[in-house]
Amino acid sequence: MDYNKKSLELHKKRRGKIEIKVKVKIKTKQDLAIAYTPGVGAVSSAVGKDKNLSWVYTNRANQVAIVSNGTAVLGLGDLGPEAAMPVMEGKSVIFKELAGIDAMPLCIKSKIPDEIVKFCKEIEPSFGGINLEDIAAPECFEVLERLEQELVIPVFHDDQDGTAIVVLAALINAAKVTKKKISSLKIVINGAGAAGIAIARLLVNQKVDDIILLDSHGTIYEGCEGMNPIKCDISLKTNKSKIKGGLHEAMAGADVFIGVSKGNLLTAEMIKNMAKRPLIFAMANPVPEIMPDLALKAGAAIVGTGRSDFPNQINNALVFPGLFRALLDYKIRTVTMEMKIAVAQAIASCVKPRKDKILPDVTDKRVVQAIVRALKKFK
Amino acid sequence: MDYNKKSLELHKKRRGKIEIKVKVKIKTKQDLAIAYTPGVGAVSSAVGKDKNLSWVYTNRANQVAIVSNGTAVLGLGDLGPEAAMPVMEGKSVIFKELAGIDAMPLCIKSKIPDEIVKFCKEIEPSFGGINLEDIAAPECFEVLERLEQELVIPVFHDDQDGTAIVVLAALINAAKVTKKKISSLKIVINGAGAAGIAIARLLVNQKVDDIILLDSHGTIYEGCEGMNPIKCDISLKTNKSKIKGGLHEAMAGADVFIGVSKGNLLTAEMIKNMAKRPLIFAMANPVPEIMPDLALKAGAAIVGTGRSDFPNQINNALVFPGLFRALLDYKIRTVTMEMKIAVAQAIASCVKPRKDKILPDVTDKRVVQAIVRALKKFK
Repeated sequence: MDYNKKSLELHKKRRGKIEIKVKVKIKTKQDLAIAYTPGVGAVSSAVGKDKNLSWVYTNRANQVAIVSNGTAVLGLGDLGPEAAMPVMEGKSVIFKELAGIDAMPLCIKSKIPDEIVKFCKEIEPSFGGINLEDIAAPECFEVLERLEQELVIPVFHDDQDGTAIVVLAALINAAKVTKKKISSLKIVINGAGAAGIAIARLLVNQKVDDIILLDSHGTIYEGCEGMNPIKCDISLKTNKSKIKGGLHEAMAGADVFIGVSKGNLLTAEMIKNMAKRPLIFAMANPVPEIMPDLALKAGAAIVGTGRSDFPNQINNALVFPGLFRALLDYKIRTVTMEMKIAVAQAIASCVKPRKDKILPDVTDKRVVQAIVRALKKFK
Repeated sequence: MDYNKKSLELHKKRRGKIEIKVKVKIKTKQDLAIAYTPGVGAVSSAVGKDKNLSWVYTNRANQVAIVSNGTAVLGLGDLGPEAAMPVMEGKSVIFKELAGIDAMPLCIKSKIPDEIVKFCKEIEPSFGGINLEDIAAPECFEVLERLEQELVIPVFHDDQDGTAIVVLAALINAAKVTKKKISSLKIVINGAGAAGIAIARLLVNQKVDDIILLDSHGTIYEGCEGMNPIKCDISLKTNKSKIKGGLHEAMAGADVFIGVSKGNLLTAEMIKNMAKRPLIFAMANPVPEIMPDLALKAGAAIVGTGRSDFPNQINNALVFPGLFRALLDYKIRTVTMEMKIAVAQAIASCVKPRKDKILPDVTDKRVVQAIVRALKKFK
């Protein structure tokens, strides 16, 4: 099926994917007097006296802002805020359909971390949480770190931790199917943007000792040139053999390839050069680093992508609906490392894994429930 | 009926008044592949190449931001952004029910004009228009003026021009019922905030020669002390007899009282001191400047308030749904004086006026149609 054509048609026909729905009845003047003035004056006065009542009297407790500046739209790069909107509306659709959360897409102009932080602080009174989305690295790291400090509502950057969590979930089950032990795997992560760095951090925490991270210039290693502070930090914890070069060099003997980069970067030859029965997570969107059929033909034991139209969709859409449902319901402010691992395990537990089914479907509503149950203890 | 109690109950039970509705079907992985990745990549790429396509492929063309900082919530003062939300959700309800517009309430922290302007510019790519709401004077004037210059999408401050337009509509029909001529009326406007100033400006444009405007210190006149530049400007065009003092002095012999101030300021005695068969528009919300029964008993020919539970509701909710429907549909960028007058006339034309029905009901859907028709020529 030509998804591009179908998608363009759908978006044009429906003029986007979300709208506002009214939860109250407004047929008579009396309805209006209750939902609006004069009655609403009593509600505003009550909230004015106790701001905490905004969680009771407005939609705030179920409302999330999806904030993006469109500097890293999918794997397509800096397309700008207008172009980010179709993706953000898609996120909003997933939030609502899977977790009943009302998520408003706010695509903004700023590219400067300080201004993005300022924007999120401005809108804090209106929302129960903020989901950062498709903001380029390294700016996204500063934005997330500062917001975690400066906001009282939870903030989550999907492209960092959402992707890292779902990769860990995929790895847990893929390791189970192939009878490998996660901590002794040699893992190559191609792409040192938001997702790549977050995946590396989570895997380091999971005691994976042999990780090689690559950016567009090649492998990252301690002391290599031209690194930003974020890459510099992760270089101290990865690539301990200081392997230099490109993807070809990094992939020799690797057990796992995790692609969060660009389409069509990975060759059959590189896969043939990996360890036995390797795992290929080619997650670039919309075009994966290698197409699944080619990867399988080259000897991959398990192949996953970010897309809905292939088996093994490794997409952060498995994470954010359930995670935010729990953050909102349990009034959790900070997403800790323990919580990230609990979410990954909860997602993995939703299927009896096999080669072509290492993760549940994104549309599987049990996933949200499993995540919410798993996070109850962090309440 | 105790609207306050009913309203508090409703808001608590429904947890606010709006939610997100999904416009597309998401049941299968294939649905997801069309609405989300990979298909959505083609949509984002198309918009990235031509930003104008955001009006076609997203909900932008039907989407308005309601921006408030809660510094002037109804007539209740600076209650803060959290407390503004119930009112903004109410606006959103009215936008959707009457005009089919998706309006997202964004209550923000900033009180500084420059920061409010910056905020609105940030979100411009996500919306088809911006409705400013409940922002205190005089800051609101600078915000509106700058945004009218600096945004490519239309911006409208409801509390300024929305209120001014509906007052003019009420005046047109009240004058008809009482056989008075608008330009020869003596009009007292109590309150020199956003609404009071905008009403005065619109009436000056309508050649009303005898207007007295009062702020909390009393009448405003050329050369009076402690005025901000906005009041100073309007003082040159009003109160030509330089009447000094308070409401008591201003009201002597007046034909019309327009209250956009605070509850219970107007006495029966003041009304008795007005010209014959005076018009009383006591629009403070939620508590009017005088209750309608008292005003009528004191000799008022016609009484209107801002509330839904009395006859003659003079509320800007008659204006903004139709106005924004036209702005969006006709892609109009600036709301001119001619357009404001056309809207007032269109609203007035929706009823055959009588003493207790000078305006159509806010829930009357013909109003939106009438405004849209009236603005077609400004396309």
